[in-house]
Amino acid sequence: MTDTDDLAARIRQGERRALARAITLVESGRADHRARALDLLDALPPSDDTLRIGLSGTPGVGKSTFIESFGLMLTGMGKRVAVLAVDPSSARSGGSILGDKTRMERLSRDARAFIRPSPSQSELGGVARRTREVAQLCAAAGFDIVLIETVGVGQSETQVAKMTDLFLLLLAPAGGDELQGVKRGIMEIADIILVNKADGELRSQAMRTCADYAGALRLLRKRPQDPNGYPKAITVSALEAAGLEQAWTDIAALAEARRDSGWLARARADQAVHWFEEEVRQALLGRLRREPLKGTMAALADRVARGETPPAVAAQELLSVMLGAGEAPK
Amino acid sequence: MTDTDDLAARIRQGERRALARAITLVESGRADHRARALDLLDALPPSDDTLRIGLSGTPGVGKSTFIESFGLMLTGMGKRVAVLAVDPSSARSGGSILGDKTRMERLSRDARAFIRPSPSQSELGGVARRTREVAQLCAAAGFDIVLIETVGVGQSETQVAKMTDLFLLLLAPAGGDELQGVKRGIMEIADIILVNKADGELRSQAMRTCADYAGALRLLRKRPQDPNGYPKAITVSALEAAGLEQAWTDIAALAEARRDSGWLARARADQAVHWFEEEVRQALLGRLRREPLKGTMAALADRVARGETPPAVAAQELLSVMLGAGEAPK
Repeated sequence: MTDTDDLAARIRQGERRALARAITLVESGRADHRARALDLLDALPPSDDTLRIGLSGTPGVGKSTFIESFGLMLTGMGKRVAVLAVDPSSARSGGSILGDKTRMERLSRDARAFIRPSPSQSELGGVARRTREVAQLCAAAGFDIVLIETVGVGQSETQVAKMTDLFLLLLAPAGGDELQGVKRGIMEIADIILVNKADGELRSQAMRTCADYAGALRLLRKRPQDPNGYPKAITVSALEAAGLEQAWTDIAALAEARRDSGWLARARADQAVHWFEEEVRQALLGRLRREPLKGTMAALADRVARGETPPAVAAQELLSVMLGAGEAPK
Repeated sequence: MTDTDDLAARIRQGERRALARAITLVESGRADHRARALDLLDALPPSDDTLRIGLSGTPGVGKSTFIESFGLMLTGMGKRVAVLAVDPSSARSGGSILGDKTRMERLSRDARAFIRPSPSQSELGGVARRTREVAQLCAAAGFDIVLIETVGVGQSETQVAKMTDLFLLLLAPAGGDELQGVKRGIMEIADIILVNKADGELRSQAMRTCADYAGALRLLRKRPQDPNGYPKAITVSALEAAGLEQAWTDIAALAEARRDSGWLARARADQAVHWFEEEVRQALLGRLRREPLKGTMAALADRVARGETPPAVAAQELLSVMLGAGEAPK
């Protein structure tokens, strides 16, 4: 039994230390770690049973409180829940890594829960690709639900939507005028909008906001794969743990319908192909930043800088070196 | 004498039909056209004498009127002026191509002016790369000034700034509160802000807007390569052709200072290297969309879709096929 087989077997048994070690391999920048990570992913094919849920919400909407309340409700139902994050800003700031567990203190101590901060990579694509692999490891380790949260910076929602089965958008109560504040495109992605803070003084405002969004959602094209009533907007109170059961009922019903119609399997297959193409693109660009191409590139760049060779002609020369003589690149 | 040599010679003599034919080759998607375009660009190294000016302004600020007035003033001074555009939206809409000449009717009939609409390509990068090559052809054809305008969609200003010697931002008069309406990043790029419509009823509002922007520019870090007072904001009236001489004086002084200090030559070299790297990236990605790699990719994608191979493992296999056995891609 190889090291990898052993680690894979321990992950399948749900051993947390094995899972943590595997995640470290997946997130590592070292070539030998990467090779082992690929072996491991190959040995742990994605599980059909795990539901992968995307969650977006800007700072201040109570995302941590929601995840803690919602996660505790799910573990209380006997479910095992993993919480991952796609947050490219944490890479830049050196990591909000400490924050992830302290802001969800009770959930992080729950034996049925597993919280993992965002991988620290320099660019969103890298963060997302590694998070998707971490989600696969969590599925192999038997988690029933993998919740992938994002802070909604730039394209991060789109990336998370491409690695999850359904997508939640958490919002705070707001005046009707602010409806446009939601980024364009996010309404197209969201399957269920949760208007949080439906408690105390904000309760009636949350109800109005929810009605506003429900109205806006009705204007969108219905998704043929989904039952009537989706996408939908509901109110919750993470603080008072209210509305969370309804949220779960709505999530589970949507997931079941998508599974039964065969849509979920097709979507997962399409997503896998998307990430394959993305890996190829990134690997190719990575080659250019390493020897021997790095040196060839530098020499050609010198000629380009001196005006001796036009950029497109130099690019053609590099391609010939990289791929051998052949058709001219377009 | 080859066809290419002949065409290059005729371009150097400033023959407009030869220039138009060369531009058609540069903008073509056909492989044989592309090969000829590269030969041609190689035969016509970039001229040091041509000043390349970037211009951005959102619809409604009077950009066409400004270009017409400003262009006619320059041709009136005996200068030859080419006007190019980077407008990725024209590709999608099937081309606002007819528009470019009708909206600058007098300038388009001027023998010293040459107006060329945006190349129609599906993505901004392609539009920008080809526009930069067209600018090189115009320089070889002896144009003193190449003005490259952009509508300010997405990243287009950044792209235009990377192919020009200095950058103008055309604005309309506005209340002080609207100062923030200018996209983040554009203030960093603009060398000279021109507040247009300083005529009739809007005159005093234009003066106030100009003062607001002048104040905002003072808060930015001074660029060490530039004389005192830059970046600057001035008022113009394209309609009354007022302030255009001042604008040209300011542009020429900035260009001269940047040339004398050696900054311009360095910036042009850096820009060329940037476009070289961009060409390499795009050519590599282009390979993946054509045979034989397209077929290999499709076969691997099938395995990925069926869950038999993780995306990253399949990507590694494709890289081996593409580049030969070697180090594992990261």
